[in-house]
Amino acid sequence: MHSDRLLLGPGPSNPYPEAIEALSRPVLGHLDPEFLALVAETAHRLRTVFGTRNRLTLPVSGTGSAGMEACLASLLEPGELAIVGVNGYFGERLCEVARRVGAHVQPVPAPWGQTLDPQALLDAQRQTPQARLVAVVHAETSTGVRNEIAPLRALQDTDTLLLLDTVTSLGGIPVEVDTWGVDACYSATQKCLGAPSGIAPVTLSDRAVARIRDRHAPVCSFYQDLSLLDAYYQGDPPRYHHTASSTLISSVHAGLGRLLQEGLPAVWERHARVGEQLQAALPEHGFVLFAEPGHRLPQLTAARLPEGVGDTAARKALREDFGIEVGSGLGPLAGTGWRIGLMGHNAHPRPLTTFLAALPAILT
Amino acid sequence: MHSDRLLLGPGPSNPYPEAIEALSRPVLGHLDPEFLALVAETAHRLRTVFGTRNRLTLPVSGTGSAGMEACLASLLEPGELAIVGVNGYFGERLCEVARRVGAHVQPVPAPWGQTLDPQALLDAQRQTPQARLVAVVHAETSTGVRNEIAPLRALQDTDTLLLLDTVTSLGGIPVEVDTWGVDACYSATQKCLGAPSGIAPVTLSDRAVARIRDRHAPVCSFYQDLSLLDAYYQGDPPRYHHTASSTLISSVHAGLGRLLQEGLPAVWERHARVGEQLQAALPEHGFVLFAEPGHRLPQLTAARLPEGVGDTAARKALREDFGIEVGSGLGPLAGTGWRIGLMGHNAHPRPLTTFLAALPAILT
Repeated sequence: MHSDRLLLGPGPSNPYPEAIEALSRPVLGHLDPEFLALVAETAHRLRTVFGTRNRLTLPVSGTGSAGMEACLASLLEPGELAIVGVNGYFGERLCEVARRVGAHVQPVPAPWGQTLDPQALLDAQRQTPQARLVAVVHAETSTGVRNEIAPLRALQDTDTLLLLDTVTSLGGIPVEVDTWGVDACYSATQKCLGAPSGIAPVTLSDRAVARIRDRHAPVCSFYQDLSLLDAYYQGDPPRYHHTASSTLISSVHAGLGRLLQEGLPAVWERHARVGEQLQAALPEHGFVLFAEPGHRLPQLTAARLPEGVGDTAARKALREDFGIEVGSGLGPLAGTGWRIGLMGHNAHPRPLTTFLAALPAILT
Repeated sequence: MHSDRLLLGPGPSNPYPEAIEALSRPVLGHLDPEFLALVAETAHRLRTVFGTRNRLTLPVSGTGSAGMEACLASLLEPGELAIVGVNGYFGERLCEVARRVGAHVQPVPAPWGQTLDPQALLDAQRQTPQARLVAVVHAETSTGVRNEIAPLRALQDTDTLLLLDTVTSLGGIPVEVDTWGVDACYSATQKCLGAPSGIAPVTLSDRAVARIRDRHAPVCSFYQDLSLLDAYYQGDPPRYHHTASSTLISSVHAGLGRLLQEGLPAVWERHARVGEQLQAALPEHGFVLFAEPGHRLPQLTAARLPEGVGDTAARKALREDFGIEVGSGLGPLAGTGWRIGLMGHNAHPRPLTTFLAALPAILT
């Protein structure tokens, strides 16, 4: 028994059929020339969706959280300072992971549901120019807020790197790594990229690569040391590091192929359209949208439940009666709100229509 | 284009058909009750193959190397001492990973190709009883040597934990976590368990769990902190940690189901039989077996190439003319030897016969 869910939570979403098909391809060895060519082509596709020409662009063998940790562990040394924008759960997680790898953290907060002030982040950097990086979440999965990244390009004129979390944004809304001056960026495959979870795409600018090369202490994680992953995937000869999964990489490769065949602008456009429709419809059912107007993500909507509706019972009914998953709330929305995703293959009218049609029955 | 290899290297091996089929099942959310039930059933199956009743038994979302790091990072604090048996590449990796998480390492070496002396490990512990753990590789994938673990049960009478790497042994030869007094054990899915790579099964004894609970410093890796993974998979309510892949867990679950349906003794027996046949045949083709007689793994054989045969060209011909992958040599066998695996679904007469039939054509 294995249910067939419509996955409308904060991710995973239902993968593209091409991504599912690719999972059953024959397994390739982790040093097979065909596998390394597949990784190279996947990296090429990732550069397009990231909006970058970065040489070091690769799939980390883990989920988005592994991508976050790979970047922080590789770029920070014990005792160094990181400035972190915090307006939701994943900003807090950036702080926690940075502290665990031995860094000092200067949080720059904003209330949950509101956007970060880019100037406050730039001011923090000006006050502590020894900060080694500024880390920001582009699309806060806990609140549905889109943070503005372009003004942070000013960090390019300093010695402070810009690290960007695009776990929920990549493939759903425009991400422009090179234009925005992003030095390190990670994402995940199970949201707007339309593949299963298990891979974290990562890209680093040349100055981020130099930062790792010039480290004094080794990266505390062997598994997530991006310089070792670079030597594995792009070394000549490739240097064995771990047994990467051709199964997952094939799937991501196929999902990206589908996405790029449709074209990024068209994909962004349908995410925007269904998200707008969902956000127009929810208040009619008594929901209260959580994120600040003007900064709402189309692909992930956080909303307070209508008065009198119990979170657990309603999600259970939606799951058991209709086979639809939505996400529970986090932080101020825990127990009182939902997170609804229309991502990747689910950013189409049918999933939206299905969800809205099921709502009345479970809100009674 | 995607080739269909016979994978006879050190892993990945070709998964069981059931494990491939399970990959295309509908994706489940990472907090879906059905997914958590699947994880629980997978953990139950893992307990059987590990030979343990340990409550904390779970799939880490990464490859075997992530399992190694999860154990070392979770069990060691900065400045603590680890004793590591080193008679091959993966013993060396244990040292490197332990040092990166801040531990001091006391290696107890033996020459590559020979077995570790359990008494030397016990003596090292007696001389430095403050050592927090003794780490040993059960099946050294670089040399084909089986290390003897049962005598290390004596560590149960000390405050030093026993950490065992069963990446290449689990499912191929007997592993008896409880009988041998193993406190922490990790493995990988792409070898004798007959699934794709990407998951690291881990099990911890109660005293290893207590060790993590009583830590002073947080684990340097958030992603690989076994106490957080425990709270996710077995917490009540489950505590979100990362977006685990139902795709990979379904596959491992199915591979384990196939293995246990056949039964561990029968699976061990066919690994033993085909390995013995391979090791009897290789010298007839001019190979020289590398591992010490009496301590050879049936599932992974390291051997020097016949005089005059070039490693790279011969492996290329085997791959391109016959679609068969074998592994290159490591350490003293680099450039001069091969590692040949007959693991999981490939521990059957047909892969062995195919390999031996192809050999003459590529050794000329």
